Amino acid sequence: MKSSFLMLGLAILMILATIYSFGRTNKNKHEQNTIETIFARKSVRSFLPQPIEEEKIELLLKAGMAAPSGKNLQPWEFIVVDDRATLDSMANELPYARWLKESPIAIIVCGDSLKSFYWYLDCAASAQNILLAAESLGLGAVWTATYPYEERMDVVKKYIDIPENISSLCIIPVGYPSSPLQSKDKWDPTKVHRNSW
Amino acid sequence: MKSSFLMLGLAILMILATIYSFGRTNKNKHEQNTIETIFARKSVRSFLPQPIEEEKIELLLKAGMAAPSGKNLQPWEFIVVDDRATLDSMANELPYARWLKESPIAIIVCGDSLKSFYWYLDCAASAQNILLAAESLGLGAVWTATYPYEERMDVVKKYIDIPENISSLCIIPVGYPSSPLQSKDKWDPTKVHRNSW
Repeated sequence: MKSSFLMLGLAILMILATIYSFGRTNKNKHEQNTIETIFARKSVRSFLPQPIEEEKIELLLKAGMAAPSGKNLQPWEFIVVDDRATLDSMANELPYARWLKESPIAIIVCGDSLKSFYWYLDCAASAQNILLAAESLGLGAVWTATYPYEERMDVVKKYIDIPENISSLCIIPVGYPSSPLQSKDKWDPTKVHRNSW
Repeated sequence: MKSSFLMLGLAILMILATIYSFGRTNKNKHEQNTIETIFARKSVRSFLPQPIEEEKIELLLKAGMAAPSGKNLQPWEFIVVDDRATLDSMANELPYARWLKESPIAIIVCGDSLKSFYWYLDCAASAQNILLAAESLGLGAVWTATYPYEERMDVVKKYIDIPENISSLCIIPVGYPSSPLQSKDKWDPTKVHRNSW
């Protein structure tokens, strides 16, 4: 009888420990490990109509602003576009941007050339943060370049009334992927050099 | 007696489940969650002399090559520098690069301008992947710009014998941080615009 109680106590303890550690594991389900996310990220160009939760959009923007920038000048600005007409118009006028017709939102990553003359580098790091954050949140996204193409940047200026000193680096359509996609394995050891070429 | 056996069986089952789920949780200890890593990343400029494990260096390079690139041209090349004399010389001749004197290694992120005329954007995404991978592996790193400064890029060309068509975007000293550092909170909601400026 005594050993029965002992076993029961032990079992309860184990159940609690299991619940605790499974809870911790499940928290990580939505947000993958960093290295895993970096390898899993892929360009997603087809989306479900399902809208994106506002908290997730905010996390993407926070991730964008957490990038490093030269002299910490943070020259970035972000435009969240969820107006269907604007998304469709940009999709029609930009090359390689027809995926904007499917995505519920797009984030335009812009830079202030008055704040930094190499704004496009800081904004590229910021865009990469957004792409990784999207992957880790179960969202799909793709870098649609506008910079360094004047004519593409002009399309953005036409539909989004941005000041003269603001330029767009890229448009990132974001949405829930319509189908699961594999990431590419791009590892190429011949591109690694040690101390000299 | 019967219930004793039942309890014992239950206890063993729970122990196994606990070991399994703790194993999964502990795997995540070294590699933080993606969003967490993005927010925790900071520029580290002071390092312990402790060398970096080769597996970690390889993970950093793999992370660098997992970045997206325009038309998937992957114009990047990486030079791992662990030669003390080369690191010290570059530290002496480059502005804002004296941290190379302390770091056990540096990764120079380069691009091939013959492969892509906007190599520096793809390489910026690649550099950001390396910085995030470093943070997630408990390492410290910092983006030390060479591009778009001709005179800095020439210093790299002087010490690393790279071909004419290869340019360096940045030098990333990497090492174990000499002291814990806080990341900056750079969230600024005034930089978010919706559909128009």
